[in-house]
Amino acid sequence: MEQVSVSEAHNRVLAEDVVAFIDVPPFHRATVDGYAVRAINTFGADEDRPVTLKLCGCVSVGETTIIVVKNGTTAEIATGAPVPQGADAVVMLEYTVQKGDNILIYRPVAMGENVMKAGSDIRKGENILKRGQTLSSREIGVLAALGWTRVDVYQQPRVAVISTGAEIAEPGKPLPPGKIYDINAYTLSAAVSECGGKPVNFGIVPDNVDRLKAVLKEALNSADLVVTSGGVSVGPSDVIPQALNQLGKPGVIVCGLASKPGKPTTIAVIDGKPVFSLPGHPTSSLLMFYQFVRPLIRSMAGKPEEAPYKVKATAIEKMFAARGRRTFVMVKLTRDKSGRLLASSVPLGLSGAITTLAKADGFVEIHESQQFISIGDEVTVHLFKPLYATVSME
Amino acid sequence: MEQVSVSEAHNRVLAEDVVAFIDVPPFHRATVDGYAVRAINTFGADEDRPVTLKLCGCVSVGETTIIVVKNGTTAEIATGAPVPQGADAVVMLEYTVQKGDNILIYRPVAMGENVMKAGSDIRKGENILKRGQTLSSREIGVLAALGWTRVDVYQQPRVAVISTGAEIAEPGKPLPPGKIYDINAYTLSAAVSECGGKPVNFGIVPDNVDRLKAVLKEALNSADLVVTSGGVSVGPSDVIPQALNQLGKPGVIVCGLASKPGKPTTIAVIDGKPVFSLPGHPTSSLLMFYQFVRPLIRSMAGKPEEAPYKVKATAIEKMFAARGRRTFVMVKLTRDKSGRLLASSVPLGLSGAITTLAKADGFVEIHESQQFISIGDEVTVHLFKPLYATVSME
Repeated sequence: MEQVSVSEAHNRVLAEDVVAFIDVPPFHRATVDGYAVRAINTFGADEDRPVTLKLCGCVSVGETTIIVVKNGTTAEIATGAPVPQGADAVVMLEYTVQKGDNILIYRPVAMGENVMKAGSDIRKGENILKRGQTLSSREIGVLAALGWTRVDVYQQPRVAVISTGAEIAEPGKPLPPGKIYDINAYTLSAAVSECGGKPVNFGIVPDNVDRLKAVLKEALNSADLVVTSGGVSVGPSDVIPQALNQLGKPGVIVCGLASKPGKPTTIAVIDGKPVFSLPGHPTSSLLMFYQFVRPLIRSMAGKPEEAPYKVKATAIEKMFAARGRRTFVMVKLTRDKSGRLLASSVPLGLSGAITTLAKADGFVEIHESQQFISIGDEVTVHLFKPLYATVSME
Repeated sequence: MEQVSVSEAHNRVLAEDVVAFIDVPPFHRATVDGYAVRAINTFGADEDRPVTLKLCGCVSVGETTIIVVKNGTTAEIATGAPVPQGADAVVMLEYTVQKGDNILIYRPVAMGENVMKAGSDIRKGENILKRGQTLSSREIGVLAALGWTRVDVYQQPRVAVISTGAEIAEPGKPLPPGKIYDINAYTLSAAVSECGGKPVNFGIVPDNVDRLKAVLKEALNSADLVVTSGGVSVGPSDVIPQALNQLGKPGVIVCGLASKPGKPTTIAVIDGKPVFSLPGHPTSSLLMFYQFVRPLIRSMAGKPEEAPYKVKATAIEKMFAARGRRTFVMVKLTRDKSGRLLASSVPLGLSGAITTLAKADGFVEIHESQQFISIGDEVTVHLFKPLYATVSME
């Protein structure tokens, strides 16, 4: 939990309930320009027989007044000004005529007409915002209305991002032969920001247990959660599980997943801090991040469980599952003439392809007990973005 | 246009087309651990009669190699390593047995099997990202894959936010009698950030032509667009239109709108810079912002036209229109047992209520020629957030 100013609180998550200490508006406010009256004094007024009231003063915006509107009198009032004592309604300027000290009223008003009552927007004592709400422009407005300048929000979890692998090179320099540029440090950092975390990039570490242990230790000291990518094939002899098991208890708790892609995913807990070792292939890595890491970061950031973005669509291609493994097939959505959503697969490019994710709208999950999806089957597509952003709605 | 580092480019809008200057991957990459072979040498291999190839070397990850795989030979290779010259496929480790210098192959491979071809993810020369795309984690990955460290993005338009009105007080201090806290400066600033602009708060200005002119002048000098709220009733004698018309040409171009809420909205252009003077009531002000200012800021920020978030729902209340004015009715959505979306109105609280917006899911627009919407009518609801965030989907 930390305290930030209301102007910096946009998109942060409330860490406290907000209870109104004042009424909003704080006084009965005129909502039109006109004359403050006792409604009962205007009954019977019409265009032919106006009621005449004696002018007893004028109430401006932003000021207090000692004027009291008594029977038979009225006070001029501007939009937003406090309705003076005694008055219970406002007659709009256009239904009045001033003659010297007299105001002629050509239309009756009901009690409360053209008046916004004190506390009618927010009632003093009301629990108006709840812990866990994300502060959009609308919630920021509620805080401002109450006169708050600072607010308690959840701290953004610090997430260490580490790339591993002898073939990974830093961008910005010519690519040495046999190497590829680091992709995961950038995609995973951006994915961390997208779900409310604060990424801290720890760079590229070679596949060396000692070097890896040193960097992981530093990362665990300064971050709330660690994400590594690459350098993991399944098996306890690999350098990442080795390094993790030497760093603290309980160490590696998940060593490989029955999923495709994502098989080499390793999960460890070191003295209470989670470490996710994701595959090196960018698409697999980001998909596993969405599956396991994003929900955890969101929860640490105080955000409520995410309503998944999903839609039903019709498969227009046969989609195959890996035997005995949960399979994720990347798909692109289109619509047929009748507006029905159609799903076709985007080849995983041997799961090395970063462009796969950029081209896909979402993925279809095939259960490990299922062999394939046939053409024409209804499938549930998990979307990367709301549908509106990808396929036109209507 | 400005240049930022790729790690800071998240959520920014590309101001250039991105053309790949390298192949990704830059070389033919092994996608499994095993043996690099000429596929034709493995034809006919099976579990009973393995093919025997002579081991001619080993290719590690992240290194170049001078090994050439000739007929009858094979090289050991790790996942991610460059496939050596001469070889066109990789046999998985599990289908091989090493006997001294000989490798026994128990399964044939096809040409290209277990090899990710150079350029198969991104082809050199390909226009892989287009000007105007917003950079999410996936697009950031493409830039990283190409080794980019800096990228041209659209500048975020600077938007000056000014509150006017004698009744408006700064938050953080006890509320003087007759005053209300400034809401609009905060809601409008947050709304500016939400659509890609950079808000600059110019504080509260009293309803005084000279003071207003001075602040507007300063705002026009430093910002790309100005948004004011409050202090506008319709008519040329009001201080805001007066001040605007004295500041430059053409001055006020729209003076009041036939809409409810939003009637006192004034739009001016001063020497090429737009100024929007929105109503003082927070809900009306934010709604008019969504209608007119947000699309303009998005366009200045290089973002494509927004696909509106809208859904069909059934009205479960009669909704009235203001005579001759386009009417916006705030609504809340629910679902009936059959999953049908239902729309009920959220009272505008005489349009002063900030809580109205926090409670509403969106609005229904009633055309000026229509008198009301009946119970059971189908309405189009413009959503403030994707539907997934407001009403559970499925």
